[in-house]
Amino acid sequence: MKVLFVAGDPKPERWTVPISQLLPEADVRVWDPNGPAINADYAIVWQPPAQLFEREPGLKAVFNLGAGIDGLLKVPNLPSDLTVVRLEDAGMSAQMAEHVLHQILEVSRQMELYRHQQRQSQWKIHRPINRKEWPIGIMGLGHIGKRVATTLTSLDYAVNGWARSEHSIEGVHTFAGNEQFGEFLATTRVLVNTLPLTSETENILNYGVFSQLQPDAVLINVGRGEHLVEDDLLRALNEKKLQRASLDVFRKEPLPAGHPFWERTDITITPHISARTLRDATLEQITGKIRDHAKGLPITGIVDITRGY
Amino acid sequence: MKVLFVAGDPKPERWTVPISQLLPEADVRVWDPNGPAINADYAIVWQPPAQLFEREPGLKAVFNLGAGIDGLLKVPNLPSDLTVVRLEDAGMSAQMAEHVLHQILEVSRQMELYRHQQRQSQWKIHRPINRKEWPIGIMGLGHIGKRVATTLTSLDYAVNGWARSEHSIEGVHTFAGNEQFGEFLATTRVLVNTLPLTSETENILNYGVFSQLQPDAVLINVGRGEHLVEDDLLRALNEKKLQRASLDVFRKEPLPAGHPFWERTDITITPHISARTLRDATLEQITGKIRDHAKGLPITGIVDITRGY
Repeated sequence: MKVLFVAGDPKPERWTVPISQLLPEADVRVWDPNGPAINADYAIVWQPPAQLFEREPGLKAVFNLGAGIDGLLKVPNLPSDLTVVRLEDAGMSAQMAEHVLHQILEVSRQMELYRHQQRQSQWKIHRPINRKEWPIGIMGLGHIGKRVATTLTSLDYAVNGWARSEHSIEGVHTFAGNEQFGEFLATTRVLVNTLPLTSETENILNYGVFSQLQPDAVLINVGRGEHLVEDDLLRALNEKKLQRASLDVFRKEPLPAGHPFWERTDITITPHISARTLRDATLEQITGKIRDHAKGLPITGIVDITRGY
Repeated sequence: MKVLFVAGDPKPERWTVPISQLLPEADVRVWDPNGPAINADYAIVWQPPAQLFEREPGLKAVFNLGAGIDGLLKVPNLPSDLTVVRLEDAGMSAQMAEHVLHQILEVSRQMELYRHQQRQSQWKIHRPINRKEWPIGIMGLGHIGKRVATTLTSLDYAVNGWARSEHSIEGVHTFAGNEQFGEFLATTRVLVNTLPLTSETENILNYGVFSQLQPDAVLINVGRGEHLVEDDLLRALNEKKLQRASLDVFRKEPLPAGHPFWERTDITITPHISARTLRDATLEQITGKIRDHAKGLPITGIVDITRGY
């Protein structure tokens, strides 16, 4: 079988060498923008060029090197019958859960204030956290959202969850659809976005939403930059509808120099590091699925292209 | 029944008013150093004076306002047959677990570096965390140590646990006693101390111990300041046996001005805030136990004075 690796990594051998080791039956090639067709059976991709699908019409499945497949679905003329497989976890959900918790504690337990005090050699104890004052609302209850929710419930937080469809997660108060969105927001102080990016969820983090949260609300966006209306965030912070935002994703990455977010002390910026795929776990998962698919066995993680996730 | 409140709070009514509400059958009094004996049945205490036990010999039980009872046990002439009850959890173990996780991420996920980059408007992604490189060792497997351990295993960390006696915790590699201490240390990179302070555990965090940890080790002390040999910590940091320490407890609190720890950039200092007792939860627990004890019912949390915890 022929496997094509299509990602902008300047050292593709970091990927192709382990792929060949894990899948010795495969002929593994690196995408060459100027090369000929190789009649690939499978492609492992991150933000591939449209050219790929013209040149390689025989692809049996395309494996995305991330959980979010919004970038892949934007490729012009993506064949609508293509089998697209997203990455499932590969170490990401645990990272996301701990990152979200870390960002919550930065605010709820005033960790920046304690760091500041240390720099002043100052010993001062502030009011302890009362979990009742920190109800958390998770938007998106897929694999990652669910893991974030269960980590927080295990630490005795009150957790709300919201998704398009009904979900049932032990210990989490779940809400579904547009009709329950307002109720979800009204009982939430820390809003954590883990939604997939689709035409329905783009711009969902906007002023109207921020205004419905509990007082001194906090936004944590670990979904996609396009979920957030940037001017609305600044307005909500300026008007104190939000006390703080922690952003890991941005409309344009890297976040451009001079962007107003850089200068805000009420925005925490991390460079899309809340959950990274780990090469080993990623390649074990993908090569396992390629082998199963080639044998005609069922595989998990196939994307519904029309739904967008 | 008569209940005596003995703690240095300048506003004792913050405690006695809710105690009276929760336990309306009790006559609740605040300790007066110069007052007469009141023939108290129960005392609720934090670091009480030795005088208490001379003046009130009829105490049926003493309830400590914290989990660690080393301070109480130091009181001279503490009657050896006194029933001492420690506080059980009251919101502390969840706080401790999340604090420890926060401190681990500060190092393992380079959060200070990302904050520094933000101040420079710099977008730079560093190597992601590989959990295999961060085996964690918890010293002390009581209620708090166990909660810290299970939180970390739930986030896919490799967790070792060590205690004086044998423990079995799902997903945790446990070690017991002096004979297995070296093995525990050799497989640990992040050493988290949650031990009770006893004559056996005092000074247990010393140079010899730090030297046996994995390279680039991290110490997190949320036990007691007396567990740590302060000069040994500085030596281990200077010699890079440890890359960092996070200290929440100190031999002298507040940590004195001019103490060498204040100036270190490789020590994180928090002012004993890793786990605070919450008044509501604390008083619900203690008043419930007083009521049960008065009825002759069994209560949990009674301390073995000779063992020290």
